[in-house]
Amino acid sequence: MKSISELRQDIVSGDWVVIATGRAKRPGDFAAQKRVSFSQPKSTCPFEKRFSDARVVYGKNGPAQESDWWVQTVPNKYPAFDSPRSSSGGAGKGICAVFNNKGPYISTNGAGAHEVVITADHNRSFATMTDREAELVVHMYQDRFRMLQDDACVKYISLFHNHGKLAGASIAHPHSQIIAIPVVPPDVASSLGGSERYFAKEKKCVHCVMLQYDLKEKIRVVYSSKYFTAIAPFASRTAFEMRIFPKAHQSRFEDIAPDEQKDFAHVLRVSLAKLYRGLKNPDYNFFLHTAPVKNHHSYEHYHWHFEILPKTAIWAGFEIGTGIEISTISPESAAAFLRKIKIE
Amino acid sequence: MKSISELRQDIVSGDWVVIATGRAKRPGDFAAQKRVSFSQPKSTCPFEKRFSDARVVYGKNGPAQESDWWVQTVPNKYPAFDSPRSSSGGAGKGICAVFNNKGPYISTNGAGAHEVVITADHNRSFATMTDREAELVVHMYQDRFRMLQDDACVKYISLFHNHGKLAGASIAHPHSQIIAIPVVPPDVASSLGGSERYFAKEKKCVHCVMLQYDLKEKIRVVYSSKYFTAIAPFASRTAFEMRIFPKAHQSRFEDIAPDEQKDFAHVLRVSLAKLYRGLKNPDYNFFLHTAPVKNHHSYEHYHWHFEILPKTAIWAGFEIGTGIEISTISPESAAAFLRKIKIE
Repeated sequence: MKSISELRQDIVSGDWVVIATGRAKRPGDFAAQKRVSFSQPKSTCPFEKRFSDARVVYGKNGPAQESDWWVQTVPNKYPAFDSPRSSSGGAGKGICAVFNNKGPYISTNGAGAHEVVITADHNRSFATMTDREAELVVHMYQDRFRMLQDDACVKYISLFHNHGKLAGASIAHPHSQIIAIPVVPPDVASSLGGSERYFAKEKKCVHCVMLQYDLKEKIRVVYSSKYFTAIAPFASRTAFEMRIFPKAHQSRFEDIAPDEQKDFAHVLRVSLAKLYRGLKNPDYNFFLHTAPVKNHHSYEHYHWHFEILPKTAIWAGFEIGTGIEISTISPESAAAFLRKIKIE
Repeated sequence: MKSISELRQDIVSGDWVVIATGRAKRPGDFAAQKRVSFSQPKSTCPFEKRFSDARVVYGKNGPAQESDWWVQTVPNKYPAFDSPRSSSGGAGKGICAVFNNKGPYISTNGAGAHEVVITADHNRSFATMTDREAELVVHMYQDRFRMLQDDACVKYISLFHNHGKLAGASIAHPHSQIIAIPVVPPDVASSLGGSERYFAKEKKCVHCVMLQYDLKEKIRVVYSSKYFTAIAPFASRTAFEMRIFPKAHQSRFEDIAPDEQKDFAHVLRVSLAKLYRGLKNPDYNFFLHTAPVKNHHSYEHYHWHFEILPKTAIWAGFEIGTGIEISTISPESAAAFLRKIKIE
């Protein structure tokens, strides 16, 4: 008999996903998928050098010397968002977006910032970093958030990382990107709205409620530390999706304290190392969902988190046309598989 | 100097896209992109035969004989949605989705239908069909819609086509898919909401307003016929995106009259032929956005259309994390390029 799938609702956004285990593969099958080779020689890599226009550079033991840097943030050479004053290191203070009407249409200039966070090792990404190395990258993320949010024109800061060619990386050398933009993005607005409605009705944070349930049920938990939990979300959009949440309610990533930052870097590294070992280095995207910058609205009901989406399938006509993603393994099976992989 | 991009709003959904011409390519550059080879031998193709469990089969000149079929609709062998009674040819009459609560979560069974519309020629897709051949496929789409909408449990019917490996096709032989589902998908719900709000405020259909403006401005029009227009939308989500709209207001695809159907098939064929010639057979997805099935709500304010999204770039961490897509060519340049390509 044909098996019937399950539709699961993301209770924050209201979106649906399909868990189609009738088309299922076992966890090991994903590891056996062909990987698209993506190596670029170190000798011609544009990210091997310490940039002279780097905005911030850290060494592993304090301030970086010319030849001893670990992580640097540089302006993107081909920015999707920029401002005439971006060379100052901020997002172009005071140069705000101007909204234009043209017939029925609305547009604005792409005022903001587009930065690249580069780590020094050509071959080692989060999965194969040390905790200390990962911590410095997370510290850099926070540092740039705090700098960019000062711009009165910036409404949202997007942080993301593309690993591998299928995940959209064009340069193989590990790097993350930070884009500051003058609007609240639709996917974030949808989650903000959902968590606001839930809070108004239940007087509770919807993410806290899910987190408490998942920590009690245990079946979707991949890894837990003092302050953070990595889970395979109930309404996963891809096979082996993971989300990392602070256990205590917190609306903004940039507000984490130093010991939380250290702990978060550890959980991010361990989660990506489990993916790397379990699925044999799959391509993936990870990104941050956090509240929009402070000076516009408080958004106290929101609960920040990182989402890690391995590129285990292509979103085709159904997914793009409906917004409903089909996953061929249940989050519970994915979590059980990833939980078992030991990372030192 | 770095060039600043433009943020454009989809005034129906409220979503934003980025037109980043600073990272721009010329139209010809897209044609020069490497195509992923995707040919499968005819001898082992599972779609070469006329299926014994086909639900509907048309020949080119009336009822199809065993060896003389042009288009057939068959149940998907690995359905994402299904029902125990689907073998009757409907979407499982009376077998409705049951919504379950589990802790804070909501799920339902994937009750519905999943069908495949297969044309007989292993190598010729819409771009290289005749008008008559395309018309029969469109007629088949409408036929299946009319059958599937009769099921009281079906809320929405998704029709889509994946062309090429990058677009998610797993079988090279040209085919479309129809999925009937028990919920209104989030992306459709967002557009329905947007067009309803616009109608309530302006007493006009938002798509009619855009269409009239685009037909007057001409710069985004790719091709026009008696009843339909193919345009490169102002807020395009990908380079060379096209949308085909009925010029007169109409909420549901399945309501088109025979002469409209013929005309629509012609415009769909010509649009895809322009893409095929201009960009040298790129991978693409197309899908239908139409109002949910009648028996649930009228949705008179909605204006159905097809969206054609060529796979000219990978949606990476920024796009997946924010819902904002970046396109590296303006819709106006794309339309000018496609307009010039002559199709007989």
